[in-house]
Amino acid sequence: MKKFFYPSSIAVFGVADSLGNLAKNIVSNCLEMEFKGEIFPVGRNPGSVNGQNIITEPDALPVGIDLAVILIPAAYVAETLDICGRKGISHAIISTAGFREYSGKESRFEKDMLAVVKRHKIRLIGPNCIGVICTNSGLCTPFNPLRPKRFKKGPISLVTQSGGLTVQAAHLYSEEHLGFSKVISIGNKLDLNEIDYLEYLMGDEDTEQIHLHLESIEDGRKLTDLARNAGKPIVVFKSNVSDISSEIAKSHTAALSNNNRIVTGAFRQAGIVRVKSIREMVLCAKSLQLPPLAGDRLAVISLSGGFSVILGDACEEYGFECPSLPRELLDKIESFRRGGVIRMSNPMDFGDVHSIEGLAFAVEHCLKLDHIDGIVLALFYDPGIAKLLGQGSDNTQQLLNFLDETMNACNKPIALSFLSERQYIEAYKKISPFPVFNDPVESVQALRKNRNYWKRR
Amino acid sequence: MKKFFYPSSIAVFGVADSLGNLAKNIVSNCLEMEFKGEIFPVGRNPGSVNGQNIITEPDALPVGIDLAVILIPAAYVAETLDICGRKGISHAIISTAGFREYSGKESRFEKDMLAVVKRHKIRLIGPNCIGVICTNSGLCTPFNPLRPKRFKKGPISLVTQSGGLTVQAAHLYSEEHLGFSKVISIGNKLDLNEIDYLEYLMGDEDTEQIHLHLESIEDGRKLTDLARNAGKPIVVFKSNVSDISSEIAKSHTAALSNNNRIVTGAFRQAGIVRVKSIREMVLCAKSLQLPPLAGDRLAVISLSGGFSVILGDACEEYGFECPSLPRELLDKIESFRRGGVIRMSNPMDFGDVHSIEGLAFAVEHCLKLDHIDGIVLALFYDPGIAKLLGQGSDNTQQLLNFLDETMNACNKPIALSFLSERQYIEAYKKISPFPVFNDPVESVQALRKNRNYWKRR
Repeated sequence: MKKFFYPSSIAVFGVADSLGNLAKNIVSNCLEMEFKGEIFPVGRNPGSVNGQNIITEPDALPVGIDLAVILIPAAYVAETLDICGRKGISHAIISTAGFREYSGKESRFEKDMLAVVKRHKIRLIGPNCIGVICTNSGLCTPFNPLRPKRFKKGPISLVTQSGGLTVQAAHLYSEEHLGFSKVISIGNKLDLNEIDYLEYLMGDEDTEQIHLHLESIEDGRKLTDLARNAGKPIVVFKSNVSDISSEIAKSHTAALSNNNRIVTGAFRQAGIVRVKSIREMVLCAKSLQLPPLAGDRLAVISLSGGFSVILGDACEEYGFECPSLPRELLDKIESFRRGGVIRMSNPMDFGDVHSIEGLAFAVEHCLKLDHIDGIVLALFYDPGIAKLLGQGSDNTQQLLNFLDETMNACNKPIALSFLSERQYIEAYKKISPFPVFNDPVESVQALRKNRNYWKRR
Repeated sequence: MKKFFYPSSIAVFGVADSLGNLAKNIVSNCLEMEFKGEIFPVGRNPGSVNGQNIITEPDALPVGIDLAVILIPAAYVAETLDICGRKGISHAIISTAGFREYSGKESRFEKDMLAVVKRHKIRLIGPNCIGVICTNSGLCTPFNPLRPKRFKKGPISLVTQSGGLTVQAAHLYSEEHLGFSKVISIGNKLDLNEIDYLEYLMGDEDTEQIHLHLESIEDGRKLTDLARNAGKPIVVFKSNVSDISSEIAKSHTAALSNNNRIVTGAFRQAGIVRVKSIREMVLCAKSLQLPPLAGDRLAVISLSGGFSVILGDACEEYGFECPSLPRELLDKIESFRRGGVIRMSNPMDFGDVHSIEGLAFAVEHCLKLDHIDGIVLALFYDPGIAKLLGQGSDNTQQLLNFLDETMNACNKPIALSFLSERQYIEAYKKISPFPVFNDPVESVQALRKNRNYWKRR
């Protein structure tokens, strides 16, 4: 499997030096992402792409290339795979579409292709996919020009049945400063399927969380057996769960739908985290990077009274409690107040405490309480107020570091959000050593995901 | 009421020329937002703010000022209101906190204050609030330095019980390019309450949608009676709906909770759109700016097969159908395909049609069908691909204009989203003449809000 992600050399079939050619983008994506291996562009007509001559005689290819990426009409895929086999290429990504998902049944092209790969013992990703983006090796096989420099390295790996979702998830993981290790578009799963990818990623050192987006599940029993023994969180977004989508899924990736209720029950038992959108996938990824939430008891601290109320509602909705805090501790926290016009409770309205020391004191002492399992913290940031209080971004960086240390020392999570303009929220996400959520209610939803995951482990 | 939003002159009480003074921010916020009226800063000690001398003798104030904004300790509010009364000021925003929400009962300060306003017939916003931001007049009374130039003018007005939410909503409405007309922080509602604001906004020409965030409902019957006859959408976010939040709400704005089930039923009957977060509020605002969705039958067009499947699931989840489209129309649309590898259906996977003409044709002809009530459209944007196809932003602007015209000609909604990096999604939101949603599933959620609103009217 490793050759699919860390090949030392690749051959790209279907390249042409013409405006509309898509395969040449595979070459430029890899170069832009600083893929270190050799790249051999192969095509029908002479020319050059990215300064490399197109090889028109596949027999001229050296022996020992690790991976072929093939984007040519379906009718020619089998003979190209035969060339690969003869050249000792044992791994291929078939990007070409127009197989079973188009005709609704096994076509002659598909049959021929399978016969060739069987003869040469070639392993396939696809067909009908955009292959692999691996931030660790720089391999980037999608055939749309992606400008992959934007992609951020990180600990999430995603296996998905959709090319569009591959790209959209790569954006989202990067924009949310999570980053990713591998995103794999698996298409029709004619050879390798989610089980193979899951097994590989379970042993992959660069992957801390495995995310799967599936339109069909080939072997549910095997999936749940594997998941039960995975030492890493497995998050699954199963689409194609409705009558409306079942037809389009068949023509998208030849996917057959599964009984949704059975899927739900099996996932739960296997400790698989189920999500219903890519946004929720990202939420899970962040949530599971926090220390484990071992119970339902939260302390809620918000710099806005209105959001304290909203957070109280959210806690109850998601099955949390906000236990009373010791009077002695509340008295101490109240001593940091400025106007003396807000009483402290849980949820705690910190709108009256314009003191970073007071905030740090409250967070640390609440998190240390035996009857508190985690903290929801909604900070307020306004550059005007920060200026008034003599606070710069250094100050916030210090606070973020302090929260990180406190959280790790207690091994309990702090779910942090900012009440601010989006530009500042984005800036804090970027500099924070731990995940920052997009709004207060989202931070409670994240803690629910975290708690439920650890409860089932 | 108009004097609360369009005063020709205001007096700000509590101003000092010192670093930590908050009332002086009221003056600078108004100036920065280009408030055209006169501003009289009043304080105990001489000095100047924003080039204006602080008036230390309230008797020196001219007669006929329209509005007082008061941010001084609770103990002195009554006597200041008495001065206002003597100077003929009949409208006051009391920003000061520390009344009923702190003590849990009517205090002497509150009693004194009420006696004075009764005697002078002064109308009050607050206490315990941050007052009004009116993008039409430039009035901006919050006491935090807001840099209100960022706020965008628009057709939404919001009444909220939370200062934090006031500011956060002003950000969100502006960031989503909706803009707002008035945001009103109403605090403890000691005099004017949501009914008064609602009545005013129903007649306000600058307000096309009325949004309310309430921690308590003072007179549910009156609220629903008014709503039933409102010619504009009324969207309500009722917080303080749980046991956990009821305590903190009391100490936040002295709000008592209401029976949530009764609220739900009454709202539904009155055609009030209920939401559960400010994000959902923004979603509603966008959704209700689209033409009405008169039924459940949607055509779904997505430039990614994976999202076609996801959108099919979302349609079913939110109670929509995706009826079959006429074969003749599908044939015509298929003639625009590039690779000829994707079959057209509903939901429609447009991944194979790299043609703006094909897209325009499909959208227009689907929307004109008698058995289609609206369209869900998930476009794909990648600058690399746009360059390949010779498309610039002009081209997208043309497409957006075309969609806008088509939608208005048919009087049916198109719920548009982009599969792209966030920076491009934001750019399209900015240039689009109609709302653009943040992701495909959100666009279906928006259509649900739209359909349900019109169904109940």
